[in-house]
Parts: sequence; C-alpha cells; structure tokens
Amino acid sequence: MQDFTITISPRLYETDAMGHINNASIAAWFEVLRVRFMEERLASGPGAGFDPAAGVGWILAAVHIDYKGETFYGSDVTGRVIDAAVGNTSVKITGEMEQDGRQTISGYAVLVFIDMETRRPVRVPDTVRDAIG
Amino acid sequence: MQDFTITISPRLYETDAMGHINNASIAAWFEVLRVRFMEERLASGPGAGFDPAAGVGWILAAVHIDYKGETFYGSDVTGRVIDAAVGNTSVKITGEMEQDGRQTISGYAVLVFIDMETRRPVRVPDTVRDAIG
Amino acid sequence: MQDFTITISPRLYETDAMGHINNASIAAWFEVLRVRFMEERLASGPGAGFDPAAGVGWILAAVHIDYKGETFYGSDVTGRVIDAAVGNTSVKITGEMEQDGRQTISGYAVLVFIDMETRRPVRVPDTVRDAIG
Amino acid sequence: MQDFTITISPRLYETDAMGHINNASIAAWFEVLRVRFMEERLASGPGAGFDPAAGVGWILAAVHIDYKGETFYGSDVTGRVIDAAVGNTSVKITGEMEQDGRQTISGYAVLVFIDMETRRPVRVPDTVRDAIG
Repeated sequence: MQDFTITISPRLYETDAMGHINNASIAAWFEVLRVRFMEERLASGPGAGFDPAAGVGWILAAVHIDYKGETFYGSDVTGRVIDAAVGNTSVKITGEMEQDGRQTISGYAVLVFIDMETRRPVRVPDTVRDAIG
Repeated sequence: MQDFTITISPRLYETDAMGHINNASIAAWFEVLRVRFMEERLASGPGAGFDPAAGVGWILAAVHIDYKGETFYGSDVTGRVIDAAVGNTSVKITGEMEQDGRQTISGYAVLVFIDMETRRPVRVPDTVRDAIG
Repeated sequence: MQDFTITISPRLYETDAMGHINNASIAAWFEVLRVRFMEERLASGPGAGFDPAAGVGWILAAVHIDYKGETFYGSDVTGRVIDAAVGNTSVKITGEMEQDGRQTISGYAVLVFIDMETRRPVRVPDTVRDAIG
Repeated sequence: MQDFTITISPRLYETDAMGHINNASIAAWFEVLRVRFMEERLASGPGAGFDPAAGVGWILAAVHIDYKGETFYGSDVTGRVIDAAVGNTSVKITGEMEQDGRQTISGYAVLVFIDMETRRPVRVPDTVRDAIG
C-alpha cells in the first residue's frame, strides 16, 4: 500500500493546561486521518463506485492510540496511514503521526462494514477492497 | 422569568496552554446552557405540546460572549439564563456564568424560528411564548 | 477494587452528522473518567499525601476504546472504572460506559509515572499504590 | 489593512446531529483565525520585536458571531480578517467566513492587552500598532 499523508496545524484550543496538545484532540485528529484516507481511496481508486446509497457503510469499532511523545503547538504534524488490512467484515487502519521529526503517535482504528438498514456486519465490498488494498 | 441554572464541572481537556478554560470550550458550554433551558421549558411549561414534527424549529443566528474573568479547572461553574426575550420570529436568551462567586461570563444567543421545510423565519409559536416567557 | 462511577449528560455539540455521539467526544469522556477517578482516589485514600510538588506526575501512554454500541443525545451515560492494575512504572485503568442499560464503550488507558524534571519513568509511588489498589 | 485569509477543511467530528458544522466548532475556528492573524502580523511586520517576554500579552474580552448561513462538511471554508481596529488598550478584530461562495459567518473578537504580572490593561504596544494597523 502506498502511504497516505495529511498535515495538521495544531490549534491553540487543542492544547491543555499541561502545555501540550491534549490526548482527546489527538484522538480527533486520528479520525481526520482515517476519514480523509477513506475518502481519498474510495474516490480515486477502482472503488470510486462505492456508494453509501447502496446501503453499505462502516462504523468505528475500536481505536487504539499509543502516545509516543508530546505534541506541541507551533509546528505542523504529519499524519500517515501506513497500513490498511482488510478482513472479512472489517478494515484495520494503522497510522502514525510525527512532529519535527519525532514520532508522537502510533495507533490503529478498526472499521466494521454494515448493512445500513439492518446494522449487521457485511463483507467488505470488493470496491473497497480494490480501493484501499 | 424564573432563572434557569445548570452546573458544569470543567474538564481537563477544556483547559488550554494558558492554564485556564479555553474560550471555545466556554462557547460550547453556552450551547449547553441555552439548549437545556429550551428543553426544560418546552417540556415542562404549557408549551409541552411544542413539536418539531409540527415543522417548526429554530436555528442559532448569533452568539455574543463577554469574558469577564478567567475560568479554571477544579471548581464547578454555574450557568444561568436570566432572560429570554421573545420577538416576532426570534428569541434572545441572555445568560451568565460564575465560578467561586466570581462572574466569569455574560452573553446572549439569538435563536430564529423557521419553517423546517422552507427554512424561512416564522413567528415564534404560541406554545413557545407561553413556555419560556 | 471498588467501582468508581461518573455520570455524563451528552451535549448537543458532542453529536455528529451520523446522529450519534462522535467517537472523539467519547475519547474525551474517557479522559474525564480516568482523571476524576485519580483525583477521587488520591485525595480520599491513604495516598492523600501524593503531591505533584514532590516531582512525580503521570503521562498518558496509551488509550484503547472498543465502541460496543452507539451513544445518543438525550439520555445520561454512566462511566465506570472497573479495574486499576498497578505495574512497576505504570497504571492500567480499565473502564466501561453504558447508556439506558446497554454497554456502549469498554476500554483502558495506560498512565506512566514520571519524574517531572527528567521526564523519565519512575516507580509508581506507594501512596498511589495504596490509594488506587 | 490588507486582508488576512486562512483555509479550514471541516472535520467530521465538527459536525453535529443537525447535519451541519456545530456553532461551537465555528467559535473555535474563529480563535484559529484571530490567532493566526496575530501570529502572522506580529512576526512579519515591523512589530516582529513584540515579545511576550516583555511582559505584555492579551486576553480575549469578547466574541460576537453572526451565523449567516449553515456550514457543511465536504468543502473548504475561507476565513478572513477584514479589519483590526486598535483602541487604547484593546484591538477589535473583525472577520468573516465563507464556503462555496456563500458567506456563513461574520463576527468580531476584542482582545485586551495586559501586563502579564499585574493582569491589568495596558496601552497596546507600538510594535503591535505598527504590525496590525
């Protein structure tokens, strides 16, 4: 898989009284990373036909974040998706963030694909497999 | 009008690097104050029949906040609606917040009532006038 | 260990366009849960003498959240710490959340104790061991 | 004054259950706009010498936001500072936001300059007057 990267400029309100970026702001950035990744891959790959209207969507099943180092205000952060492992009904997206050459975050999110009507897990559509594989 | 009060316990992630609660967190609390006020009045007053299904809702048209003093982590904040002025198509809700006996915030929000379908302003329903007046 | 519980009333701005509480808001609530737990235990237990001024603090090393079910606006959420496992330099706090009798979240956070000056891990102080064990 | 603009890409977690960007997220963006403006002007103008170490800082005294139109996920927002009016001890920064050619927000923030030690208002430093005028 080709890495997917985004740049995030920390915002003042994302800091906390410890003087660094708060862990919950970083969990929110992690959503930005995986959502931008899915948007980009599903629109640009062979899976461009993936269509929520087809009745399949995904939900977030799990998030894991290792806080490797503090993130500070004043310098851009690079977020990177380094792997997207497709299972039967789920996709595990692994990412990292770094600031000023230091790794600050590593983690993953598990997305489960569901039938939007029954809310039950369904096989990850082939269009998605093709797009993010 | 009888004052309406809520209690907010500041959260660590709502602080910022200046060591106090961030202004944007307080703007978010202000939403909590006006929404809880509307929910409580519309459900308990004679306007309990107010029904979004009737096709009338409101949107936020303006917010004004004066930051009178810093708000800190570690001590509860009291939010208070002190006035709700009903105009033709709008309601202006005025509120205050205090912490440890010091006023920290005063401000107001203007809600405009709209026809949910046309999105055009409509007269504030009588049920709402009765409930929050 | 005796369970520690908090109550969280979802806020409107914590919802997202999917109509439920956003995952990042829940990650923020998870901070509230563990911080309130630590505050309560360290102040009320035999470890009341634990003193950041003594130069020992903790940092968040990892968070894991399993999203078991959707959380909605309009009904209180109960957060519960069900375990706090003390290691050599870290504490693993395990928690759950539920709404209307349904489990919505389970997860854990790993806190690492550090010397505030050198920023290096140190043994979890005895006062902390006594207080949260 | 030359306009100062920033671009903000709405994030999924900034939406709310009404399907648009929540008002509190926009209040937070408004902080981003005024802070980036001050950072850029104070570093690049003749006031580059403005130094918090000199003991002068600013606090937010008031924010006013008119919500002119809904902001949605999926399309960039342009934030623009269109005026910065320097008074004796304060600066009033007026800004706007637009999305897809529609104005979504107009508003202002009042910053008061203070002596960081006494926390009392002081005259806006000449370096600041030169930089943002």
